[in-house]
This record gives sequence, C-alpha cells and structure tokens, in this order.
Amino acid sequence: MHDWLAYIQDHNQQYLDELVAFLRIPSVSSLSDHEADIRTAAHWVAERMRSAGIDGVEILPTGGHPVVVGEWLHAEDRPTILIYGHFDTQPADPAEEWVRPPFEPVIEDGRIFARGASDDKGNMLIPILAVEALLSTEGTLPVNVRFMFEGQEEIGSPQIPEFIDRYKDHLACDLVLSADGLQWREDQPALFVGFKGICAMQVDVSGPATDLHSGIFGGAVQNPLHALSHLLDTMHDAAGRITVDGFYDSVVPITDNERRLINQVPFDEQAYKDQLGLSEVFGEAGYTTYERAWARPTLEINGIWGGFQGEGVKAVIPSAAHAKITCRLVADQSPEEIISAVTRHVDAHSPEGASARVIPLSSHAHPYLMPADHPGNKAAHEVLKDEYGVEPYYVRLGGSLPICSLFLDKLGVHTVMFGFCLEDECIHAPNEYFRLASFERGLRCYGKMLKRLAEY
Amino acid sequence: MHDWLAYIQDHNQQYLDELVAFLRIPSVSSLSDHEADIRTAAHWVAERMRSAGIDGVEILPTGGHPVVVGEWLHAEDRPTILIYGHFDTQPADPAEEWVRPPFEPVIEDGRIFARGASDDKGNMLIPILAVEALLSTEGTLPVNVRFMFEGQEEIGSPQIPEFIDRYKDHLACDLVLSADGLQWREDQPALFVGFKGICAMQVDVSGPATDLHSGIFGGAVQNPLHALSHLLDTMHDAAGRITVDGFYDSVVPITDNERRLINQVPFDEQAYKDQLGLSEVFGEAGYTTYERAWARPTLEINGIWGGFQGEGVKAVIPSAAHAKITCRLVADQSPEEIISAVTRHVDAHSPEGASARVIPLSSHAHPYLMPADHPGNKAAHEVLKDEYGVEPYYVRLGGSLPICSLFLDKLGVHTVMFGFCLEDECIHAPNEYFRLASFERGLRCYGKMLKRLAEY
Repeated sequence: MHDWLAYIQDHNQQYLDELVAFLRIPSVSSLSDHEADIRTAAHWVAERMRSAGIDGVEILPTGGHPVVVGEWLHAEDRPTILIYGHFDTQPADPAEEWVRPPFEPVIEDGRIFARGASDDKGNMLIPILAVEALLSTEGTLPVNVRFMFEGQEEIGSPQIPEFIDRYKDHLACDLVLSADGLQWREDQPALFVGFKGICAMQVDVSGPATDLHSGIFGGAVQNPLHALSHLLDTMHDAAGRITVDGFYDSVVPITDNERRLINQVPFDEQAYKDQLGLSEVFGEAGYTTYERAWARPTLEINGIWGGFQGEGVKAVIPSAAHAKITCRLVADQSPEEIISAVTRHVDAHSPEGASARVIPLSSHAHPYLMPADHPGNKAAHEVLKDEYGVEPYYVRLGGSLPICSLFLDKLGVHTVMFGFCLEDECIHAPNEYFRLASFERGLRCYGKMLKRLAEY
Repeated sequence: MHDWLAYIQDHNQQYLDELVAFLRIPSVSSLSDHEADIRTAAHWVAERMRSAGIDGVEILPTGGHPVVVGEWLHAEDRPTILIYGHFDTQPADPAEEWVRPPFEPVIEDGRIFARGASDDKGNMLIPILAVEALLSTEGTLPVNVRFMFEGQEEIGSPQIPEFIDRYKDHLACDLVLSADGLQWREDQPALFVGFKGICAMQVDVSGPATDLHSGIFGGAVQNPLHALSHLLDTMHDAAGRITVDGFYDSVVPITDNERRLINQVPFDEQAYKDQLGLSEVFGEAGYTTYERAWARPTLEINGIWGGFQGEGVKAVIPSAAHAKITCRLVADQSPEEIISAVTRHVDAHSPEGASARVIPLSSHAHPYLMPADHPGNKAAHEVLKDEYGVEPYYVRLGGSLPICSLFLDKLGVHTVMFGFCLEDECIHAPNEYFRLASFERGLRCYGKMLKRLAEY
C-alpha cells in the first residue's frame, strides 16, 4: 500500500472526529443570525488547511460571507489545480422533521447525519485531508494546488463574480476541481459535463382599467386571460418545440459522440413514468428524454394567474393576467439574448385589444458545457474507473451551476465536478447524511486525481 | 285629468310614507339572520295588496323564502296579466360606505335612499298602488290581473322553478309584466327584449403526480400550464370568434329588423373605450359592439391559476392547472348543449402528456328572447312613448334574467320588462336610491299599460 493511503487509513478516526467538529458549526448562509457561525466555519477551515501544510491561507472579504483561500505552489513545471467547495449550508427547517438535531452530528450505519454532511462540508474537507496525506508522506504534491472555499454558495454566491475578478491572481490555474459535486450511484461514477443556464421573466397582460362584468362586456372587449393564453400557447408547437423566433439560434448542436455518451446512461421509461405519475413522456421530437432534460433548452411556464380562483362562479373579465416563465439555456445561449427573444415574441404576438409586457426576473445564469474529451475529464475518467471498476457515465444537469461558467468566463478554465455526494443523501432536506464509504472513497480519489493530473 | 290619475296625486304623500315603511324592513334574502324580516316583508306586501282591493292574497311556501300571490279576475273576456316583482334585497355591506343607514330611508333631492329602494321594492310597490287607484276610482280593472312577488330573487330564486310548476293555476296568464326592470335614461325609455343564458365550467388539467423541478424535468414532460394555455387558446380565433365545434349550432340569427333596432341605440365608441380604459374595442367580425354584447353568445375565461404566483422565481412544473369559464348563451342555445360542446372540445384538443376534464359549475340559465314586435312590446312601446315623448330603444342585456325564460318555458308566455329603475341608482351597491319622479312615472305607466292591455 502507498504510504499516503496508509496515512489516510491510520487517520480515519481523527478525520471523522474533525468532520463532526466541522458539522457542529451551524453555518447557515441565508440566516443573518448565523453570520458569526459562518465566520467560525471560515476560521475552522483556514486552521485545518494550515495544519494540512497548505501555504498562504487567508480569509478574504467579499462584502458578504468570506472566502477562504490557500495554495501550495512548489511543483515546478507542473499544472496548477484550483479546488473549489463551500462551507456554508442550507437552513435546517423544517426542524421537526429531523430525526436527530441537524447540528449535532451522529454516525449510524456507516452514515454521518447532519446538515451540510454531504453538501458540502463532507465533500470539501476531503481535498484538504488528501493533500495533507500526500504532503505528510511524500513531502510534496504532484501538482500545484490552490483552494477557494466560499461561504455563500447556498444563497447564490452573490459576491463571487466580483471576488473572482478581484482575486484573479490568487485563483489562476489550469483546471478547477469542484468538490461540490456528486456521483451517479454508489456503484456507478459519473462525470457531469453540462449545466443549463437560466433566465426568468414575468409576462403581464393588461386590458380594461378595472375588472368588468363578463355578462355585460363579454365578447365586446379583449379578455386579458384570452390574450395571455394565446401568448403562452404561441411559445411551443404541439410537439413541445419552442416557437419563439431566434430561441435556438445560439444553441451548439449535440454531437454524435455527446448523444452516444448521454444514451449510454440507462433509461427505464416505465420506471420514469411511474415515478412521476405520468401516462407518457413528452417533448421535442427527435430527442430522447435525457437529451431533452439535459441537453436541450427549455421554456417552462412556472405559474399563471388572473381573475377569479375561488369556489363557484364569478362572472368577471379581469383587468390583468400574469405568467411566470423560466428558460433553461444550453451553450452558447445567453440569458440576455433569450429575454430579448421572448420579449420580441410577446410584442409580435400580443392580441388586439390588450397590451403585454415582459419583465425580467432576477434568476440569471449562463449555461456550462465541458467537452467530454477534455483532458480534465480524461483524468477523472481514469481515476473513477480505477476506483469503481466501471466506466463513468457522462451526464448533464437541467439545473444551473453558475460557478462553472464563472470560472470559464473569468479564469478561462474548465471545471471537473469531482465530488462524492449521492442523490439520495437528503441534500437541502431534513436528515441530510453523507456515506462514510464515500468520504473514504473521496480521499482516495482526490489523492489519485492529483497524481494523475501531474501528466495534465 | 282622469280620476285614477287624480287619485294617485292625492295619495302621493301616503304612498311615499308606505314606501318608507316597506324599505324599513331589512329583508335581505342571503343572510339567515334576516329570515324573519323576509316574512315580515311578505306580510307587509300581502296586507298592502289586500287593502288595494286585490283578491285571494296568500303567502305561499316554497321550501325557502315565500311568495306572495293575489289576483283580480273580474274582467270577463279580457286578457290576464301576471305582474311579477320581488320584496327581498341584496345585503347592505360594505356598511361603512353608506352615507345614511341602509334601512332608515331618507328622502333628499327628489330621491329616496335605502337598500331595495330601486331594486325592487320601489318598483314592485307601483303596480299594487296603480291597481288600487284604478279600483278605487273606476270600481274595476281593464284586464284580469294576477300577482307573484317573490322573496328570493337576490339569491337566484332557487325554489321558484318548482314553485311555478306547483302553482301553475295561480299564475296562468296571457302576458307577464315584470316590475323588476329598468329604463335607459331619465329621458329615454327602453324595452328589454333579450337576456343571455349562462352556463359555467371549470377546466382542470392534470399532469405529474406532484410538482416537479422545472430544471430537472422541463422539456421532458408535459407542463399542465402549457396544456391549459393551449386548450384555452383553441377556443377562440384571433378575431374573437368561438372555435368550439357546434357552439353556434342553435343560435337564432339576428334578423335585419333586430339589428336595425339594436343599432338605433346611439353608441359612442370613444366614450365606451374611455369608460373602460381601453385603446380599442374587440370582438367577433361583422358585428357592432352592442350586437356582440347583447345578441351574440360568448365564452369568457373568468379565472385561471396554477403553479407559482408569488414574488420572484420558483422553478416548478405544477401538477395541475385550472380555469373557470362562463358562456353567455343566446336563443336557442341551451346550457346543457354548450357544456357538452366545450367538453367535447377539451377532449379533442387535450395535448399529449396531460389529461383535462370539464366540470360543470352551478350557474345555469336559459337565454331569453322576445320578438320585438310582440303585442306586449307594442303596448309597452305606446305607453312609454306617450309618457316620455320619445320612441323607446329595443335593447338586450348580456346578463341573465332566468325568470323570463322560466315563465316562457313553464307558462308559455312572454314577459314585458316594465320597471322604472335607472342604471345609476346604485343597485347592489352602497347608497342605493330610487327617483321619486320614476316612482310617480311608474304609477302613471302601470295604469296606462293595464288600460292599453285591454286591447291585447
């Protein structure tokens, strides 16, 4: 056995005790009551990095919750890897649904239960400890390493774009490894190579100055609910393809290889329908369900309202009608471009007798797509295959992960999602937990990955 | 001057005092607290009918609020006229908006202010007093007269259809005069020859078993809000014509004469738009605004809801979406036929991947159309022209007045709306009033109308 792997085994109990101590800090970023806890967590992280042998550890201000940085840059002529994670957590409510108190970690059945165990404290502690094991046993690292651990991921990282701009020099690297990532199943690794962007809008249709009696005025004036239904219906064709002019203009087509990789992920349509309570799947012709969900942009109405919603009957033509829309974007669509396209569509399709406007809402993220054959993915592929004994899937997420496109945009580098959380670990929900087996596997994988990246 | 007109003049103060006493009874039919007041009002009406010389006055049970009937049937070989009205009122809320207490009538500036003054106590008292004047001065009436005054009009007359069936013999007649009617303006009489019917439905669209994350499932499953928008949008074309198959099948086309009569009513489009705060009128091609509102059937969405309606963004595909619809019907459409047509339409147009159903709601009334040249209208035309000095307009209402189609259906007779309320008299609103001039005019018109109907 390599010395560094033996070191990890020998320190197993210490590492778990440290994870318990880290999880005891209720570093909830969304609640102002916990601001001091966020600072405590930042200090805990900085101290642990220092004791691991990491240089230049600093807690940097952002205007909001701080960022902890550090580096080890003594591997001459070797690539520099930036390791990212976050030490803030989601709130623990609803408190009554936790079987064990959320900030009093308990280890049971090979799992550690606590808020933040999986997302992301358990995962972000791994690379620090892996670096310690390598430095302690080999006296050096196979690559240069930088660290960036933030305290505001769970509130959307509002100050991080500016932070990255300001501390570019502290963050310069050849590749990012994000410790805020997941695997497919306990026995199946995955590389997450794409995240959708997002933009959000409200459509407001206005008609008469006040609500009108639909018996007296019906048929003689435009009904804003009719106008809204029409506007919304013109945004998709019957097969679910988006009919907003220009919507697909910037979409990078899926390559044959990307399709092959997506469809290597087994899909059980009946199980999917059963899980969702649906009689059929539905979507853009010519694409599989995973292609639709992962690799094609969407325009979804999230809410619609206007007029009478109570019991019984109220004969009213309302003066206004509203809808909320989010679009999920794929490379190279931009939120600005899509908001413009939808606005033009609404202007062009507004029915006679009513006026409609589009108001952009605050959700806003660029899509992210990493080439499947990127050297970072190749390295991770080898490490994961070695660890799991099976080839990783190449998957994408319909959700947004703005940090990846931020790093690409501002630092010019791609991000390998290299985390060991699993989907069933109650992330953002009561009774969050992290598998101890994943914790140990993560330590092994990070050590192997840093070694593998020496050849990057 | 005729003796009966002199009688009315002589009794002016007494009649007003009696109207005040009648209006003091808070006979609100929708509030169970006022059940005794409804009975008090019924007794007051019955007593006043008896003292007017009307025979066979009875308070008849309905299972709900009672009906007061009476008759005078000594005009051999003359037609029998049924006079209809109601002694119940709307509630008085919001109480704080009444300048004077709603059930303490005050006479000011030629107006009597109280809940029910115009709708319908002031109006329904008129025919009783006019009959008294004729009987007192002439000892006889020019026609046979029956009376039916109900106590549940403001709650939709739920027991009246069964009541009419049961008491057909008490109500048999050649023509109905409804004292629950209005005129166009203080200087402009009108005959109301059509009321629309109504039917109401809720459309429920259901999709996935629970709300889904629109980032994860968007594009891969049918969104019930998309399905609902599509269903609703398929119900009209761009010009506002209803595209539900079979919707217009039973519509009796407007005759040239009916169009001529409708368009004799002056219409100031700019004033209409200004009043409603609209930049343009809108509706079915080939029809004027009054034709659309009065004589063409409509399908109006009254409310729509589903998904997220709060501030900001919530990335959700809701499991369900809903809309409320009312259709206003014209002769000879039936509510049942239209509910079937809309149900068939929804079945035929339900998008893939979602299911939709139509649930009929309780509003339900048949349309009513009276020939403009009906002898009852001819008689009313002459009387109103004589009184106002100008020809009456022939108008229709987009609203429903189920009593007219009930009388036509169950008694086989048409109803001349012969009331003297005016649109500005705050009916159903705070500070309702009735013009004393209309009260006096009504007394004269009822006397003249009964005389004119001797030739019916």
